[in-house]
Amino acid sequence: MPAVTLLTDFGLSDAYVAELRGVLLSSAPGVMLVDITHAISPGDVWAGAYVLGRAWRHFPAGTIHLAVVDPGVGTARGALALATGGHYFVGPDNGIFTRVLHDTVVEIVALPTPPDAAPTFHGRDVFAPAAAALARGAPLQSLGTPFRGIPERLASAEPRYEGKAVVGEVIYVDRFGTLVTNLTTEHVPSYASLEVEDLDLGPLRRTFADVVAGGLVALVGSDGAVEIAVRNGSAARRLGLGVGGQVRVRLG
Amino acid sequence: MPAVTLLTDFGLSDAYVAELRGVLLSSAPGVMLVDITHAISPGDVWAGAYVLGRAWRHFPAGTIHLAVVDPGVGTARGALALATGGHYFVGPDNGIFTRVLHDTVVEIVALPTPPDAAPTFHGRDVFAPAAAALARGAPLQSLGTPFRGIPERLASAEPRYEGKAVVGEVIYVDRFGTLVTNLTTEHVPSYASLEVEDLDLGPLRRTFADVVAGGLVALVGSDGAVEIAVRNGSAARRLGLGVGGQVRVRLG
Amino acid sequence: MPAVTLLTDFGLSDAYVAELRGVLLSSAPGVMLVDITHAISPGDVWAGAYVLGRAWRHFPAGTIHLAVVDPGVGTARGALALATGGHYFVGPDNGIFTRVLHDTVVEIVALPTPPDAAPTFHGRDVFAPAAAALARGAPLQSLGTPFRGIPERLASAEPRYEGKAVVGEVIYVDRFGTLVTNLTTEHVPSYASLEVEDLDLGPLRRTFADVVAGGLVALVGSDGAVEIAVRNGSAARRLGLGVGGQVRVRLG
Repeated sequence: MPAVTLLTDFGLSDAYVAELRGVLLSSAPGVMLVDITHAISPGDVWAGAYVLGRAWRHFPAGTIHLAVVDPGVGTARGALALATGGHYFVGPDNGIFTRVLHDTVVEIVALPTPPDAAPTFHGRDVFAPAAAALARGAPLQSLGTPFRGIPERLASAEPRYEGKAVVGEVIYVDRFGTLVTNLTTEHVPSYASLEVEDLDLGPLRRTFADVVAGGLVALVGSDGAVEIAVRNGSAARRLGLGVGGQVRVRLG
Repeated sequence: MPAVTLLTDFGLSDAYVAELRGVLLSSAPGVMLVDITHAISPGDVWAGAYVLGRAWRHFPAGTIHLAVVDPGVGTARGALALATGGHYFVGPDNGIFTRVLHDTVVEIVALPTPPDAAPTFHGRDVFAPAAAALARGAPLQSLGTPFRGIPERLASAEPRYEGKAVVGEVIYVDRFGTLVTNLTTEHVPSYASLEVEDLDLGPLRRTFADVVAGGLVALVGSDGAVEIAVRNGSAARRLGLGVGGQVRVRLG
Repeated sequence: MPAVTLLTDFGLSDAYVAELRGVLLSSAPGVMLVDITHAISPGDVWAGAYVLGRAWRHFPAGTIHLAVVDPGVGTARGALALATGGHYFVGPDNGIFTRVLHDTVVEIVALPTPPDAAPTFHGRDVFAPAAAALARGAPLQSLGTPFRGIPERLASAEPRYEGKAVVGEVIYVDRFGTLVTNLTTEHVPSYASLEVEDLDLGPLRRTFADVVAGGLVALVGSDGAVEIAVRNGSAARRLGLGVGGQVRVRLG
């Protein structure tokens, strides 16, 4: 039986994640449950999309990813189950799959809402049962009706060229305070220098330890994005920057 | 083999939860371990009882629930294993099972304390071994001696009638700052209005999105209790209310 | 198949732990994954070593422990897989195994770094694949080359005698604010009194409840070390003490 991963903004303090797990184990006995995270900030669909977009591809083909960051729960927003890249995804149609839908053939169904579903907890009453059905081997098509529309995608800023510079944006901040940007090595040739808040970070380095402890460093992170970090520290705190902050690549 | 769920106030930073898991896997090889939560505030038996009381019923029959919020560890407080509603529960006799014991036939044994049990860690040395034995298929009666007393239950305020109003109480605050009350739809007819801290919330709504972003809303939560929430925000912070706070239902 | 435990400083908010889990499940399908903790403070190798040193021995023989607190990732620090006490351990050679290597015969191999490993994420690209190989049954020797050196160990202060007293140190503070010291019952005879910050705590007690609520208590913790706690409170906050704080045992 394939594994089911869980990504939510429910936190780990309350009963909500346990109720998801209970429903999954009741409907798909013995299924392996694997947390991606439950610490997405409440309602932060963008952060959920980012984390899901990084994590899913490391799981085995056939894995089912249940992703519930769902501030619009109980409204007319859609509920989806989809197959792409050899994996399955289940969750609300609110952009949570923005970084999954990229460039791949996708098969999508719209999930019905059972009449007795709690209007504030579709994670438990709509999405977990759908994920459990997939885990039991139910075909995707059997879960709902073919989805004819275009699933929601969150708009994401592309790096823009300004004279002899490229200006990128911070798209995620991790627990270490490292700033993940929308820049890749395509935007940063080896002779370029990076600037943040008027500070010159020099060229891309290989790893944190290529600067002194406490020093700022720009490098290519483990997902291929340019990141700004402080060795043994927090770049977010040092620079006072968060999502949307600007990072400038000086090309000449 | 049935699953074992874990609910504690141990947090996830230290070795304590891992030691529980290790003991369970050593004594019941291959058993599936499922966290309910480990983020109960230290010693908050009431919150543990609330979360356990919500979560357990979503798991498959036969599941074993290990619940250790145990500020009296090492004292003469009892240690219990019990069967109710088709599930098993193991933990201290301090009220943690208050919301499990409700209205069901219960079979209870008192667990002995092995002489070498650490007086500060019965979770590892008393309760986890008992849960592992149940997972291996040991009969409940084999774990200890029949328990003849009445297990501890925490007192819980019932809603009270005051003229043309019902006054309920907040019994739990979740990570979103939503206030869960001891009121149900029985106490709140459709024509009634809810009041908190002199603010009129109007009648019960269906879901968060039935009010504007940032607005206060009263609704029936996913466990059947009346809840006070702020759409995309925290009612606890907005109202400065916590457990014990009053919610008034105006009936006329 | 043996279980793989995970101990990191990655936190549970980001995708990093999920990527480890995905790699492990992809390379060792069906392997049971068990968290020790992911809440080690960023880069705090000492705390990681302490928690690992407590937890590992409670797991079944043959368990594989993946421990990644790795501030020197991407530098020339070594990467190790080792067998000791009937368990396997995989992680950086930076002292994380300090409390595992104690007094036991050890077999160690140095792990190679694949050329495409991300220089900032050896957890995913070096250590998780090695742990997965062990879980699949690969012999330790097949993972790398024999390690001829002496693995790093963190220096730890030993209790020292000062006239009629023994002076110990706090080596760890848990989520309850309990101060774990490097003292054991060997250093604290039954007639001795403990002192912290000029406060007399009296002799060792059995459990928290041997003092009044809010009272300071010294006792032997569940791992055999002398601990300073506050019943229903935090000794760390009360005393303003952390790792390195002094605890004095008055012998006469």
